[in-house]
Amino acid sequence: MEYTEMKIRSDDIFKGKIVHLHVDEVELIDGSKSLREIIEHDGGVTVIPVDENGDVYCVRQFRYAFGESIVETPAGKLEKGEEPLACAVRELSEETGFTAEEYIYLGEFYPSPGYCHEKLYAYLALGLRKGKAHLDDGEFLDVVKYPLDTLVEMVMNNELCDAKTIIAILKAKRYLEGLK
Amino acid sequence: MEYTEMKIRSDDIFKGKIVHLHVDEVELIDGSKSLREIIEHDGGVTVIPVDENGDVYCVRQFRYAFGESIVETPAGKLEKGEEPLACAVRELSEETGFTAEEYIYLGEFYPSPGYCHEKLYAYLALGLRKGKAHLDDGEFLDVVKYPLDTLVEMVMNNELCDAKTIIAILKAKRYLEGLK
Repeated sequence: MEYTEMKIRSDDIFKGKIVHLHVDEVELIDGSKSLREIIEHDGGVTVIPVDENGDVYCVRQFRYAFGESIVETPAGKLEKGEEPLACAVRELSEETGFTAEEYIYLGEFYPSPGYCHEKLYAYLALGLRKGKAHLDDGEFLDVVKYPLDTLVEMVMNNELCDAKTIIAILKAKRYLEGLK
Repeated sequence: MEYTEMKIRSDDIFKGKIVHLHVDEVELIDGSKSLREIIEHDGGVTVIPVDENGDVYCVRQFRYAFGESIVETPAGKLEKGEEPLACAVRELSEETGFTAEEYIYLGEFYPSPGYCHEKLYAYLALGLRKGKAHLDDGEFLDVVKYPLDTLVEMVMNNELCDAKTIIAILKAKRYLEGLK
């Protein structure tokens, strides 16, 4: 059965650089009313770059929301009107300096569909060539290299905590093993 | 290297039922200043219940942020002071009616660490016994059953879009195959 929710009204609360928050009143299928707190977000990409030895280049950066540095696959936000693949090429180069001969689409996903409209696109980058990283102003991170199989073990041992990174690693592993 | 960011000030923007938004001014390691738009969220759990035939019970529900119904593993928010495992037991029962003999911890993860403090805990539930679902007021969903291997194929074919669901499926698959 399709349980839609009808918008009655929408109140803008905040429009920032990253998030846009609005609170909507909705009518549920039983006629009752409820509020939905919704974050709009432009979305982004993540790229898992795997070289010919099976090594993966990740980034380690401070995440203010958690007050800790975490290991993630290279990633970034979509710019206005930017195609996800172009964003993947740009972010991989900016954060790690790598370009890739081939980008394989690993799918898209919603990090928090209960309250957030963010959509992320994932790519596997193969045929890597090293160039020079060129970070945005105010962006600080270290590039860290791990064998893909080590990253899979880290995922299973709960040593990696970023959702997009976990998805990119486990999907890339299955893809490269020819598992569907 | 550790790239911390020091809080200079924090402005509360909105405290709702689900999200709490504040904007903080921070000092970066080069002495420059920046703003961080941060969502606080109480966090939650997801449970992937797998029966003795390898079938998984998911839920299909409308997600207002995307205006569509999507398939997800059963999940819910942590109540005040609630332990993640207790939340997993409660949400599985509320949404599907199942209780489980065994809950295996599949790890925790951050859906959007760039701007959101939400943390999700994942569990694999085995030894299922069917009871009666008892949804919260205003909660509408259908329980849908798929073989775990079908769900893995759906993940690899980009037919499932919820991040926690993708992680729960791929981690449960590796766990049940004895792959670390």
